[in-house]
Amino acid sequence: MTSYLRTACFLLALSPLLKADEGMWLFNEPPPKLLKDKYNFDATPAWMEHVQKASVRFNDGGSGSFVSPDGLVMTNHHVGTDCIQKLGTKEHDYIKTGFAAAVPANEPKCSDLELNVLMSIEDVTAGVNAGITPEMDSSASERAQRANINAIEKESLDKTGLRSNVIMLYNGGAYHLYRYKKYTDVRLVFAPEKEAAFFGGDPDNFEFPRYDLDICFFRVYENGKPVKVEHYLKWSHDGAKEGDLIFVSGNPGSTARLDTVQHLEFLRDRSNPMVMTLLRRREVMLRVYSERDRENLRRAQDELFGVENSRKAYLGMQAGLQDPAIMELKRRQEQDLRDAVKRDPKLLEAYGGAWDAVGKTIEAAGEIYTDWYMLERGMAFHSKLFGIARTIVRLAQETAKPNAERLREYSEAGLESLKEELFSDAPIYSDLETLELGDSLGMYAEYEGMNNAQVRKVLDGKSPNARADELVRGTKLNDVAERKRLVAGGLKAIEDSTDPMIRLAVLVDPEARRLRRRYDDEVDQPRRQAYAKIARARFAVYGTNIYPDATFTLRLAFGEVKGYEENGKPVAPSTTIGGAFAHAADHGNQDPFHLPQSWTAHKAALNLSTPLNFVSTADIIGGNSGSPVINRGGELVGIIFDGNIESLVLDYAYSDTQARATSVHSAGIVEALKKIYNAKRVLTELGVN
Amino acid sequence: MTSYLRTACFLLALSPLLKADEGMWLFNEPPPKLLKDKYNFDATPAWMEHVQKASVRFNDGGSGSFVSPDGLVMTNHHVGTDCIQKLGTKEHDYIKTGFAAAVPANEPKCSDLELNVLMSIEDVTAGVNAGITPEMDSSASERAQRANINAIEKESLDKTGLRSNVIMLYNGGAYHLYRYKKYTDVRLVFAPEKEAAFFGGDPDNFEFPRYDLDICFFRVYENGKPVKVEHYLKWSHDGAKEGDLIFVSGNPGSTARLDTVQHLEFLRDRSNPMVMTLLRRREVMLRVYSERDRENLRRAQDELFGVENSRKAYLGMQAGLQDPAIMELKRRQEQDLRDAVKRDPKLLEAYGGAWDAVGKTIEAAGEIYTDWYMLERGMAFHSKLFGIARTIVRLAQETAKPNAERLREYSEAGLESLKEELFSDAPIYSDLETLELGDSLGMYAEYEGMNNAQVRKVLDGKSPNARADELVRGTKLNDVAERKRLVAGGLKAIEDSTDPMIRLAVLVDPEARRLRRRYDDEVDQPRRQAYAKIARARFAVYGTNIYPDATFTLRLAFGEVKGYEENGKPVAPSTTIGGAFAHAADHGNQDPFHLPQSWTAHKAALNLSTPLNFVSTADIIGGNSGSPVINRGGELVGIIFDGNIESLVLDYAYSDTQARATSVHSAGIVEALKKIYNAKRVLTELGVN
Repeated sequence: MTSYLRTACFLLALSPLLKADEGMWLFNEPPPKLLKDKYNFDATPAWMEHVQKASVRFNDGGSGSFVSPDGLVMTNHHVGTDCIQKLGTKEHDYIKTGFAAAVPANEPKCSDLELNVLMSIEDVTAGVNAGITPEMDSSASERAQRANINAIEKESLDKTGLRSNVIMLYNGGAYHLYRYKKYTDVRLVFAPEKEAAFFGGDPDNFEFPRYDLDICFFRVYENGKPVKVEHYLKWSHDGAKEGDLIFVSGNPGSTARLDTVQHLEFLRDRSNPMVMTLLRRREVMLRVYSERDRENLRRAQDELFGVENSRKAYLGMQAGLQDPAIMELKRRQEQDLRDAVKRDPKLLEAYGGAWDAVGKTIEAAGEIYTDWYMLERGMAFHSKLFGIARTIVRLAQETAKPNAERLREYSEAGLESLKEELFSDAPIYSDLETLELGDSLGMYAEYEGMNNAQVRKVLDGKSPNARADELVRGTKLNDVAERKRLVAGGLKAIEDSTDPMIRLAVLVDPEARRLRRRYDDEVDQPRRQAYAKIARARFAVYGTNIYPDATFTLRLAFGEVKGYEENGKPVAPSTTIGGAFAHAADHGNQDPFHLPQSWTAHKAALNLSTPLNFVSTADIIGGNSGSPVINRGGELVGIIFDGNIESLVLDYAYSDTQARATSVHSAGIVEALKKIYNAKRVLTELGVN
Repeated sequence: MTSYLRTACFLLALSPLLKADEGMWLFNEPPPKLLKDKYNFDATPAWMEHVQKASVRFNDGGSGSFVSPDGLVMTNHHVGTDCIQKLGTKEHDYIKTGFAAAVPANEPKCSDLELNVLMSIEDVTAGVNAGITPEMDSSASERAQRANINAIEKESLDKTGLRSNVIMLYNGGAYHLYRYKKYTDVRLVFAPEKEAAFFGGDPDNFEFPRYDLDICFFRVYENGKPVKVEHYLKWSHDGAKEGDLIFVSGNPGSTARLDTVQHLEFLRDRSNPMVMTLLRRREVMLRVYSERDRENLRRAQDELFGVENSRKAYLGMQAGLQDPAIMELKRRQEQDLRDAVKRDPKLLEAYGGAWDAVGKTIEAAGEIYTDWYMLERGMAFHSKLFGIARTIVRLAQETAKPNAERLREYSEAGLESLKEELFSDAPIYSDLETLELGDSLGMYAEYEGMNNAQVRKVLDGKSPNARADELVRGTKLNDVAERKRLVAGGLKAIEDSTDPMIRLAVLVDPEARRLRRRYDDEVDQPRRQAYAKIARARFAVYGTNIYPDATFTLRLAFGEVKGYEENGKPVAPSTTIGGAFAHAADHGNQDPFHLPQSWTAHKAALNLSTPLNFVSTADIIGGNSGSPVINRGGELVGIIFDGNIESLVLDYAYSDTQARATSVHSAGIVEALKKIYNAKRVLTELGVN
């Protein structure tokens, strides 16, 4: 008890670790006391299980939820865009026109969409660290951990048939095994026009007030039939109002709240600027391409949206890191923990060196960062076809090894998903491929200099654009059958292949692998070990009632519907459908502030005071897109689609002063489905017609 | 004669220095023999003088010509945009609507436009180098040259009252004194809508076929009355047709054809990538700002156009430098000259070390490039208000020194133009200033790291955006009277000023000046000396009938109206007005392929087969925008407004395979003025109604 008291004391005195509605909580380690104390809410195991199993992860980077017993899934339009765009053709641009399947038979299958539903979580920290001794060097311990993880995943897959992923938490402080039910037959049911879903476009993105119907519906099939699910969220017609407690169940992508200050400075001064430079480069390239004609726009718009969205998100994150006040807060928090460790000789002995150890990995990362980013992370080869070539080459190499020794992404447990993606027949556009590959090769040459030996090997005596043209023209990897042939043929087929993209992937592989090895040995693994120590120090000092950084796995956040102040003026917590029309008029109804014809045509029928979007204090971040917003009763009251600019700093530190999560309101969805889209079939399933 | 023969022999054997229509010729050193031999044209002194004095330089970066005896000047719409935009208000956006003054009294004055007409050129190489001895170090020789130049310019100004600039040619091989008649009362007469002037927008920029009416008309006033000019270009109604010889008289901005290979590699691997990263960053920022609402767009569009235009130009230039074939050509040419120097012991002794000397300056530049670019070139402070603050601070410091010792841009001869710009009442928009300054401060922090001492001093403990907000909010430099007060108060006023922007300019000045000093001493001056040697070596080996790299001074180019081949298909040399309508229809009349209402309304009246744009082999580059295209008879047959993508490589090497200069056709201009714009007053002055 003394220890507990001391901890509580530190909590108050030193480091107000948890602020108000902070937290992206693990479903197996929720904060019942916190919810009880602040909101008088009982997070019963049954409630938790229901929400967990009604939640859906979109594997390409988003969240969603079951909203009917017949496998109807709701997510954001911008999460569904990849599929919606790929279902289109030059003649049918569903992003522009929207889509509604009149009958189930008209629901078209997405070419490469995988959904996951989390079935169980198990702490496997001991198993992952089994056999690791302090004497082992980074490389040996990394290999041992990798072997353990691959074995745990394989065993789980064999035993349960479920997708099994070991997730590193607390930057290495713990490892949990996540088992997912996996769905790969996902079909499009309904999507509004992009003009409604992304009304206000890039200018309004990450802003509030906001007026977007950023939703779409898919249906999950199994064995050719709609899947029957036990856990789905019932629809709340009225939705949430100001002051209501709400929950968000989704998959926040990644945060860096537990990073050391030196680590954050590396993000701020080195890696974020590099990523942002890359994003702006892609944005300009894709904009120019998209403006040339409408078909170009259709082909590129999903990627362009993603790039613009990331650019704006990074801008907000970077503004946070460049704010001395935030860095000072992080510095103080770090100092508090380090001081506490120093005061306890045992803690000092065990964890005192961890911060410097992280520092050493930052220096090591600095040395190889550019090369590693270009070659191993593949930024030099911005091309779907190159990605396919590399996967085929490495698949042959890795599957020739025992499971324990393979690169993480080629371990037995993940092969099925990997092959589904590899053999997707989603269209690949040669003109766009050539443009993107040429541009990224040019960028590579600029970072390293044209005289760099590796650059010269890659370019093969040609200009970046000419080399890209030659590669895209010459490859046959556009053909799924050819991919399958090469995979079936294994190492021998790779060796014999004269496909120029395969040859390029083979050419760069030794250097790319060398960089990865170095990065694993000198950065990732020692960093994991050091952070594991910091995590244990934090547990020892502050107790275990904390949550780990986001890892694109299911988390529970909570908060209340609440406005905020901006430039001294109050911002109301919700907007209305009528507000959307007013906002359009304020901007002369000019693109991207142009509402689709379906909205203007049905304006008279609409109840303009129906809530459309609202904000809450829930602790969310990118990856939460499409997450259901749920009330005490477990009903769906909205769907997360954004956060305001001020929320982007949540990557590094929670705040509820101005940071807000933005959702579409359940009542606004129903009003639009009824009166604008006449989407009776969906409404019937939601039980609200 | 032997020497000449040997030279000619080298010319053929080694280095085909001049290709076909290559050359941006000095008006005092034209190529009469070349023109006589190839085109049987006599470039008489009278013809040359007429063209020279009818040509006009737009000081903010463009060209134009007198087209009536009453001071009517034609240039490109995109050259005039800065003035047209500044004349607008939230209520009147002349960029969008176009502009036509019904009577002379309605011609509004541009706030800060200066036009120059070249009156004479004088070789002052000896004077500039007077007193320079081989024993002097870079710093001493630079000071001596600067003193000589300042004295020459001052003496010329005092004697003639003309704007007098000593221009460095052949990278330091020669210095010529240019004397200009300067006009600062310039008023807008006519401009079409941007939709017509820049039809096809960024996607069509640097492309051909093209369909732009990229023109506008200004009038030059003196003493409140239209200036009467002796030399103006008569209008050719029919214009030029395929195969015609044409001349271009204008101010190409800068080329790097005489740069060493190592220098070109520095451009390719270091400075171009940095500039392009900056351009993309600005482009994205300005796009986002412009999309927020129409008034934002009006405020930012001139800068946005400039940035997009530069980005595309750099992309083309960089593609040239990244093309191993072009670099190989440059390498061979350099090797040929170096071999020739090696074969002659005298040349070897005098010039043999010049290439390595250039190399040393490249290394020196590499060391300080980022700091210098950020602080002295001011990229860290992307703000009109900061620019004003720096000019005020330096003006006080420099004018306190003798003329001979001043920084180049504060020498006596240039003060009048400098003050006119400084005291311009062109609007400055605080929101845009804050955005741009915040973004550039953030960029500076990213390049140097937030912990850099100079960065910390600049940011003063705030985030880049907060610092920008504080600076823009706090400064009074928006007020022209305050600028005048500070300038009148000299050093004392600067010292006493608490204006935060002035204080920032004072704060960074010592370090900025230190970097400039280093750059001058270790890069610019030794490079100039080394290039002067290479230039003399080139004269010795190949003779003097060559032209210097472009320096934004008046040059004469020539060529013929001629199509080319692209992807195996012929591209016709000209387009028609009818083609513009077809091009719009091909793109669904969607912006930026939307023709203005004035065009569609008058379509029936137009002769659709009238030529609109045409291409020629003339050797032009950025800065030539607005240059008159002239026939043998000295009549105006068109106006340069662009070059195709393939022409961008002309920065480094001339080619007439695909590179083409793009012009608006004189007949197309007349047809549009008559039937679309009913611009009778202009037509009467042109003598074509």
